[in-house]
Amino acid sequence: MELKFDFNNMMQSQVGVHGIDPAFIDRDAPLIRKAYQKVMDNRGKGWQEWCDLPYASDEYLDEMISYCGEVGKKAESFVVFGIGGSALGPLAVASSLLHLHHNELPRDKRNAPKLYVEDNVDPERMNALLDVIDLKTAYFNVITKSGETSETLTQFLIIYDKLTKLLGKEEAVKRIIVTTTVGKGTLYNIAAKEGFKVYDVQKGVGGRFSVLCPVGLVTFAVMGFDIKAMLKGAAEMAEQSACADIYRNPALMSAYLKWISMKQGKNVSVLMPYADSLKYMADFYCQIWAESLGKEVDDEGNVINAGQTPAKALGVTDQHSQVQLYTEGPFDKVVTFIAVDEYRSVATIPEGGVDACDFLKGHTMNELINAERKATEFALKKAGRSNFTIYMPAVNEKTVGELIMYFMYDTAFAGALLHIDTYNQPGVEEGKKATFAMLGRAGYEAKLKEVNAVKKESKYII
Amino acid sequence: MELKFDFNNMMQSQVGVHGIDPAFIDRDAPLIRKAYQKVMDNRGKGWQEWCDLPYASDEYLDEMISYCGEVGKKAESFVVFGIGGSALGPLAVASSLLHLHHNELPRDKRNAPKLYVEDNVDPERMNALLDVIDLKTAYFNVITKSGETSETLTQFLIIYDKLTKLLGKEEAVKRIIVTTTVGKGTLYNIAAKEGFKVYDVQKGVGGRFSVLCPVGLVTFAVMGFDIKAMLKGAAEMAEQSACADIYRNPALMSAYLKWISMKQGKNVSVLMPYADSLKYMADFYCQIWAESLGKEVDDEGNVINAGQTPAKALGVTDQHSQVQLYTEGPFDKVVTFIAVDEYRSVATIPEGGVDACDFLKGHTMNELINAERKATEFALKKAGRSNFTIYMPAVNEKTVGELIMYFMYDTAFAGALLHIDTYNQPGVEEGKKATFAMLGRAGYEAKLKEVNAVKKESKYII
Repeated sequence: MELKFDFNNMMQSQVGVHGIDPAFIDRDAPLIRKAYQKVMDNRGKGWQEWCDLPYASDEYLDEMISYCGEVGKKAESFVVFGIGGSALGPLAVASSLLHLHHNELPRDKRNAPKLYVEDNVDPERMNALLDVIDLKTAYFNVITKSGETSETLTQFLIIYDKLTKLLGKEEAVKRIIVTTTVGKGTLYNIAAKEGFKVYDVQKGVGGRFSVLCPVGLVTFAVMGFDIKAMLKGAAEMAEQSACADIYRNPALMSAYLKWISMKQGKNVSVLMPYADSLKYMADFYCQIWAESLGKEVDDEGNVINAGQTPAKALGVTDQHSQVQLYTEGPFDKVVTFIAVDEYRSVATIPEGGVDACDFLKGHTMNELINAERKATEFALKKAGRSNFTIYMPAVNEKTVGELIMYFMYDTAFAGALLHIDTYNQPGVEEGKKATFAMLGRAGYEAKLKEVNAVKKESKYII
Repeated sequence: MELKFDFNNMMQSQVGVHGIDPAFIDRDAPLIRKAYQKVMDNRGKGWQEWCDLPYASDEYLDEMISYCGEVGKKAESFVVFGIGGSALGPLAVASSLLHLHHNELPRDKRNAPKLYVEDNVDPERMNALLDVIDLKTAYFNVITKSGETSETLTQFLIIYDKLTKLLGKEEAVKRIIVTTTVGKGTLYNIAAKEGFKVYDVQKGVGGRFSVLCPVGLVTFAVMGFDIKAMLKGAAEMAEQSACADIYRNPALMSAYLKWISMKQGKNVSVLMPYADSLKYMADFYCQIWAESLGKEVDDEGNVINAGQTPAKALGVTDQHSQVQLYTEGPFDKVVTFIAVDEYRSVATIPEGGVDACDFLKGHTMNELINAERKATEFALKKAGRSNFTIYMPAVNEKTVGELIMYFMYDTAFAGALLHIDTYNQPGVEEGKKATFAMLGRAGYEAKLKEVNAVKKESKYII
């Protein structure tokens, strides 16, 4: 494991009364052991098939690298249609490994297609995409595990119609890769009939835990990332997460410390990476943490309304936006920093030039961003605010694989400590039904009546 | 005022026990009146000079439109260097009015320079910028009110050195616009000596309230936006915010309802626009709400640790990421939706094609995104979750001006209700000092000792 975790600033010894009493870790050892064992016992079973993803066979990966590598060579643009877990994982990982202005680079400098991860049904966004890609040289990855996601099917229907009209059906078929559950669902049925290339989403891998299955890997292989190195990193973190000793298991330690913090009323969890390349990791974390832990009932059906609201921040940028609140506002949050030891390039502040800011001259931006991160950590600690830091020696396939797997085990352990179903999402059903009703879908007539029965008072409308 | 606000789902009549008792509004009338009066009485004074920004003279604006319009014609790329309020307002407004892939459009389709708002000191980001802009045709806007912001000065020093070496000093000088306090600060002194074009940041306009002063307007004029229409929208919202009747004053009503919600333990405020063009409005809101209200002490110096954590979401995208938590998690948040009635384009789902998803066919994405918004509002209401909706008839200069001004008055009224200093940010000083110390700035030797004196326990490092 190349990542390093520093939990000191979660403890009372560093942050005082709002921190965690170290004796709690011993006191709660039986609970921790039980949660740990639940996750361990279910590896590879039920909704925990994600635990097996790092161990994909070479044969399986080689086919993907070969097929997707060819697509990567032929495509000028590669477009992902997906939403939620089908988009946030691919986006977070791709953003961490690509040039920050990848799509604006000339082809000979980027060595991979332009990448668009389209996870909304805003009509302006769909049309904006069509303004900048050339359909003649574009390839599409349509991702929905269930094969029934309205937003993704909508995008697909619009594009496949255009591709067919422009290129003819034979060529249009070659432009689509479908990532879905083989054997069931609307999208699979279309794919089987039309003859699209299909990658299977394993049965026990849910959307927000799917980035290391074809949901993410297809895109990564198209973009030319070293997916074997990524899975190697994930495997190393999986092994570390299997340590029974909490002092050697960062995912178990962070899950426990955040769980205790929730009990202390800290209902907000901030992820603040100090690297633009990791900005979208906060979006990935927001989904996995919010959707997994935000649950009305526990395993026994008791109403507990569990959950901790994840918040995205970016260092140093949000020092000038959020840190005032973090240092002086309510003691209601845990801040997780991500530090990067070695950035992939250096920017040096020139020695000469205008006569000012002498204390900056000769330093690098690399020194500045790391000094600011340490300073913010110091200021939060001094203000008694709980925080911990994940150190990445560098951002690459291996370390990103470790980070992704850490987030998954962190969430799994936290869900086990909360005694909830980490893997369902019943709270989104009501909205789906109401949407179907408003679009006039057969069978939803009663729901439409219910929606239309809502009466608003005009005095509250301004 | 073209915006419309629906507060029904904040009330007990809609969301039940976790909502607000309508009798509270009468009960708290004296407090509301006092807060309202405090904001009204200070318009144009002290740190409330932002209230006057909509009333800039035609002469003043015409000069800006003329000068910046010329820059817009000459520049292939326009780069903003700033951080916090100097970046988030310009980014939010520009993103709302530009094509969603503006920088990827060919020049004849975008009619304005490429725009880069650079608000970090990540070395990879600085170098990525240099990879995609051509310095020979790039113009820069360096924004810092104090003229002392380390991050912005760092960016400036690097670029000005490169420009001077590449183009010679005479031409390099023409490429820089400085937006700062005229007459004081490091950046002003450099600008005066070198001969840069300077726009003044009014004395009583703080960073997070500055988007309608040159901090934002310069960029908007360069990009060819109708800044007079924007200020007209802002003026209309300012007038509406001057209504003493809370039932006619949306900023006062929302500030009050969120304040009451904070007292009920709702310490999270989500902004969820249903439009990709408004995505960065959430970043703007996050700063103004977090940094203004996140305060340790009230006006009398009592420690109150006030504040509500703003969270960013995007509809429909985050229905597949955050809404599970919003409907089933703790009753600890208020969700603000932004609805758009008319998007700037239409995307129609084709009638024919593959044999599936018949309920979607013939509909538009426009219908789908609005049905999903209404469905999510319905689902939240049904789950007893407080929310309200801001309706924009369309996204344009006028309505964006209204929205920006609403956020400012909303924040000002909330700060007055909390009895805090809305306009300071003492909580970021400690981090700045620690940064100076670590960079070896003279005078910070004691701070460096303090930083270095922190001892970590190795058992909490994994």
